[in-house]
Amino acid sequence: MERIYFDNAATTQMDPRVTEAMLPYLQSFYGNPSSIYSYGRETRLAIEQARKTTAKLLGAHPAEIFFTSGGTESSNTVILGAVRDLGCTHVITSQIEHHATLHTVEYLAHRGEVTVGLVTLLPDGHIDYNNLEEQLQEADGKTLVSLMHANNEIGNITDIHRIGELCKKYGAYFHSDAVQTVGHFEFNLRETPVHFISASAHKFHGPKGAGLLYINENVRIQPYIHGGGQERNMRAGTENVYGIVGFAKALEIANEELEKDRLFVQQIKTHMIQQLKQRVSTVLFNGDAEGESNYTVLNISVPKSEKSEMLLMNLDMSGICASGGSACTSGAQQGSHVIRAVNPDPNRIPVRFSFSKYNQLNEVDYVIDRLLEFI
Amino acid sequence: MERIYFDNAATTQMDPRVTEAMLPYLQSFYGNPSSIYSYGRETRLAIEQARKTTAKLLGAHPAEIFFTSGGTESSNTVILGAVRDLGCTHVITSQIEHHATLHTVEYLAHRGEVTVGLVTLLPDGHIDYNNLEEQLQEADGKTLVSLMHANNEIGNITDIHRIGELCKKYGAYFHSDAVQTVGHFEFNLRETPVHFISASAHKFHGPKGAGLLYINENVRIQPYIHGGGQERNMRAGTENVYGIVGFAKALEIANEELEKDRLFVQQIKTHMIQQLKQRVSTVLFNGDAEGESNYTVLNISVPKSEKSEMLLMNLDMSGICASGGSACTSGAQQGSHVIRAVNPDPNRIPVRFSFSKYNQLNEVDYVIDRLLEFI
Repeated sequence: MERIYFDNAATTQMDPRVTEAMLPYLQSFYGNPSSIYSYGRETRLAIEQARKTTAKLLGAHPAEIFFTSGGTESSNTVILGAVRDLGCTHVITSQIEHHATLHTVEYLAHRGEVTVGLVTLLPDGHIDYNNLEEQLQEADGKTLVSLMHANNEIGNITDIHRIGELCKKYGAYFHSDAVQTVGHFEFNLRETPVHFISASAHKFHGPKGAGLLYINENVRIQPYIHGGGQERNMRAGTENVYGIVGFAKALEIANEELEKDRLFVQQIKTHMIQQLKQRVSTVLFNGDAEGESNYTVLNISVPKSEKSEMLLMNLDMSGICASGGSACTSGAQQGSHVIRAVNPDPNRIPVRFSFSKYNQLNEVDYVIDRLLEFI
Repeated sequence: MERIYFDNAATTQMDPRVTEAMLPYLQSFYGNPSSIYSYGRETRLAIEQARKTTAKLLGAHPAEIFFTSGGTESSNTVILGAVRDLGCTHVITSQIEHHATLHTVEYLAHRGEVTVGLVTLLPDGHIDYNNLEEQLQEADGKTLVSLMHANNEIGNITDIHRIGELCKKYGAYFHSDAVQTVGHFEFNLRETPVHFISASAHKFHGPKGAGLLYINENVRIQPYIHGGGQERNMRAGTENVYGIVGFAKALEIANEELEKDRLFVQQIKTHMIQQLKQRVSTVLFNGDAEGESNYTVLNISVPKSEKSEMLLMNLDMSGICASGGSACTSGAQQGSHVIRAVNPDPNRIPVRFSFSKYNQLNEVDYVIDRLLEFI
């Protein structure tokens, strides 16, 4: 049996059409986009075309789109900028944010530059909007709210319109880590009350090393990486031209085929939920799997036993790629901070399955067959 | 006539062998290197192999090698880390450093976190080592010295051993921006008294978006980009796997063919100097062109006239790529801060020519023919 890749929230396979679009910029067009002669103008044009495409697909203005080395850099840039340049002295976030957010906030808190409030979580892993409003009401000084659009581990989707309206009401800035949703959902940022979003190409069949930072045109922050005047003075360093071209191409394909892919992937997730319920009596679902949830992610747990403690390894040996949590922390072996926050049962083993257009429905059945052997 | 690319200090053409080495990681091996299953182990292995190769070629230990999104990020990481984590309160640098260094230092100075000393420059653009020693002697508190190995505009090479020994004597940390020399000179970092170096793959026929940060094993700084535990907790964010693979491959080729390429490129530079002297009576050379100078860079000036003010544009229209200074600032139209510091003659126009293995000797003659027309 071929390998089954059920870890698309960690990273996705490149779409061959994306690679093809990138190749000319790896092979022929190598000019530095900041150079004023022909070779430079060619790559400058490619970047600005990518910016226009990206802006249009997200319902934003090209001047609001900045390319970075990835979602993590984007989130670092926003959080530091909100504190240093917009005068935020308080950050409201949640325990289940990505480490790119949490560790940056912790860094600033440790330096005494911000105080931090964590929004209460409901048992299904959703944030408690009433608690968010209370915290906004009580916050002293300017506040940044950083809450992700879809959680990378449990898939829960937050209502960014609702959060954005609350932020508006209390004069707070709003950043949303949309790394798991850009390329998987339609965006119209012009109609969305959000100041900043972070995104990453490799989560929607684009290249690694290519990220997006959306900054609403009414907000001005300083660069995080200092140096040359690239990205209209917002991000120094020679541009990763082929990465940027790949970002735009991946987003273009994702948007064109969004409905078809979404239906297909949702079908896989739904099938897996149904089959698990029927065949694995001890299964539980982490997060709001059948409610406000990303169609790409399904997080389950099974009872801990000597056998099930080896579950991920046994799945791996059967050619099945799944994870215990975020890939970014899986080296660390400390388990998932998200599961600890949402369903901290030491007697259960969490497993995240996440799907893409390159999966097949029958892969679900095979995975459940193996799962039954290993628990 | 084909285009002539004489701006290799801005960026270089990818070596096709580098592209070829990267392709599998754009097409087949897409696993997240932090994932513990097979797909992840494949890309993890590629990164660690790249780290070993790079370390070996630079005479360093693999644990001293960190991959970043580029030279600019590397320099930002070092300078901020030296201040925040090593307690440096003073930075000694020079007016002719790259903006990645200068703007980062200015940022920290503006925030009141450091004081700054600028080393005196000699008329040939070299730093005054006596002045450096005086400044080190007089410096209060811990000091970071950040002086580049070869200047990107005038090509002058500093003696990093001499600087490093001075830093040792006075207990200062030493960072060298080696973006213009890694891949062009042999390094043996184990024998070099330097704490940090920055490098960038696209300056030696590797990919854009792939940088190197060398941190001597006796020094510990915190990450600049916070988040996941990638790069042994030194650089968060999913690794740009194909960029890292490309970095190592480009360095491998560069080192294997270093002597041959150096002789060839030096010949082009020498030929250009000779021909300019013979044929362009008004030419002057910026920096120490025939002395301690990078064999890849030649910076000249010609008298300003209505005609010569259009020189770069006219060269461009003849298919010749050359620049007025660093590409990173050429959008800004403020002229070169390096030339202003070294040869600030408002009546002369500076032009940088920079060469690579992909140039030809006879291109020099064609360029000088055109130059004579345009001045």
